[in-house]
Amino acid sequence: MAEPLFDRVAIIGVGLIGSSIARAARKAGLARTIAAADQDASVRERVAALGLADEVFERSGEAAAEADLVIVCTPVGVCGPVAAEIGPRLKPGAILSDVGSVKGAVVRDMAPHVPAHAHFVPAHPIAGTEDSGPDAGFAELFDGRWAILTPLESADPAAVAALRAFWEGAGARVDTMTVEHHDLVFAIVSHVPHLIAYNIVGTAADLEEVTQSEVIKYSASGFRDFTRIAASDPTMWRDVFLNNRDAVLQMLGRFVEDLTALQRAIRWGEGDKLFELFTRTREIRRSIIEQGQDTAAPDFGRRNAPSAGDHGAISPPGP
Amino acid sequence: MAEPLFDRVAIIGVGLIGSSIARAARKAGLARTIAAADQDASVRERVAALGLADEVFERSGEAAAEADLVIVCTPVGVCGPVAAEIGPRLKPGAILSDVGSVKGAVVRDMAPHVPAHAHFVPAHPIAGTEDSGPDAGFAELFDGRWAILTPLESADPAAVAALRAFWEGAGARVDTMTVEHHDLVFAIVSHVPHLIAYNIVGTAADLEEVTQSEVIKYSASGFRDFTRIAASDPTMWRDVFLNNRDAVLQMLGRFVEDLTALQRAIRWGEGDKLFELFTRTREIRRSIIEQGQDTAAPDFGRRNAPSAGDHGAISPPGP
Repeated sequence: MAEPLFDRVAIIGVGLIGSSIARAARKAGLARTIAAADQDASVRERVAALGLADEVFERSGEAAAEADLVIVCTPVGVCGPVAAEIGPRLKPGAILSDVGSVKGAVVRDMAPHVPAHAHFVPAHPIAGTEDSGPDAGFAELFDGRWAILTPLESADPAAVAALRAFWEGAGARVDTMTVEHHDLVFAIVSHVPHLIAYNIVGTAADLEEVTQSEVIKYSASGFRDFTRIAASDPTMWRDVFLNNRDAVLQMLGRFVEDLTALQRAIRWGEGDKLFELFTRTREIRRSIIEQGQDTAAPDFGRRNAPSAGDHGAISPPGP
Repeated sequence: MAEPLFDRVAIIGVGLIGSSIARAARKAGLARTIAAADQDASVRERVAALGLADEVFERSGEAAAEADLVIVCTPVGVCGPVAAEIGPRLKPGAILSDVGSVKGAVVRDMAPHVPAHAHFVPAHPIAGTEDSGPDAGFAELFDGRWAILTPLESADPAAVAALRAFWEGAGARVDTMTVEHHDLVFAIVSHVPHLIAYNIVGTAADLEEVTQSEVIKYSASGFRDFTRIAASDPTMWRDVFLNNRDAVLQMLGRFVEDLTALQRAIRWGEGDKLFELFTRTREIRRSIIEQGQDTAAPDFGRRNAPSAGDHGAISPPGP
């Protein structure tokens, strides 16, 4: 096997993403030593039990000292304080990166703490599930998924190339874009979709006319797909909305404007307008499948959900 | 094997649902003879090629004549004209039913055409996928899913019991509720979720700041889940919105009200409000999984989508 890309990699915050990076790095031999830090004692215990890291610390500064690559995997709301602790400990030539779903606020909060002798290269791997915590991670999480680097203009090309190699080694495909463009793109493909999923689940839970047990019982008719996204980590997503406020409000404005037009078409019985939109949206699904970004199997290839009653056996989804 | 429940069952409209009913009825031996009608010649050809029915007709009246149970599986927008053709052909004691996602409009449009010597029992099986057409159906589609009957007050109890037995024979669990309550429940668990899925996909496609290819490329970050629902049959869904207008507008009003409150919380940085909602919505997901209405596997158990590039192999979803 070739030499590891990095002698020492430090993972700060070992949740779904941090633990998946540790697993992928170990599996692909990307680091000679993996150090991990988490302020939560129960997380550190799981990290040790799962053997995710060679060294486990409570303080991020301890883990970051002597590391060649430090990846901050905390919710974006605490990236600033974490960078303030790590910054002074970074050794010359060290690369500091992150995995935050917003980049403008992360750069604003982290960059000031990075010493001149180290390199800051923000990143965002486009991968995850609705589960949280170190047990939820797996080494293949990034396989074939995109990892986006948003280097600043002043970034050292060698540091950017090294981080690219790390993510490619972890299975990802790498793209670069500006911080500002990143935040607009993910406002529409990720943040607003999560917001409306959280919102519809909240609306349904609060109705008087329809009981919560009816909502749950009949959820297979569409609603349940939204509940998966609305089960994502609350802290992470609170921080995303607070830290990408302008782009989210801009895209949400567009969404509401379009929804109001649909509402009006329903009120006035304009079937052609509805049909035109519903046909156009099919094309986008087709492109997503063609480009390998989702499965073509109906219902996501979910098995027909087992019932609690007569039909306990899970049936195959047919021919 | 026991006697079939019905001597002759007629399926009118052989799409995803109609063809699945035909397959389920055959598999479970619910009918001695299955007749099918579809006005589309290419559909009739597939029905014959797949052997879904014993007799295939162009005209619904021909298929319905002599049938003991007639199930109309067309989009709800044409239920009225179809009932007008079938009504005069119904034999004494025949049961007429449907599978429409809205019930008020179906009763309004179909009931006047049902002769006094026949029985009308509206129904709605809560099952489907985003695919359409006779090839998309499968016999297990209804296994463990709910089928809701909305009998009118004047309904014959024996006819209701016979239809219940048919759906239970097809694998479903059966519930009954009033027409009005049905339309409210499905406005929130199905119709509004579909509307906002169609809407967000439309909004994303129309942006100037973010290209459509970026939306597709990075769709795994949330957006792609919505595109599955937004790939559902356009004709069926146009008819749903036009025919359940009042309940959809009522529930959409609640959704928008709640969304406006979330928008305001983001603008004013009220993280606690966001966190409270995001925590509450997790519970609902948990209940849906506990009650067997969805899979507990992260990401719906989807495999990590294959890439078109370096990582062509599909990786298992981890431990």
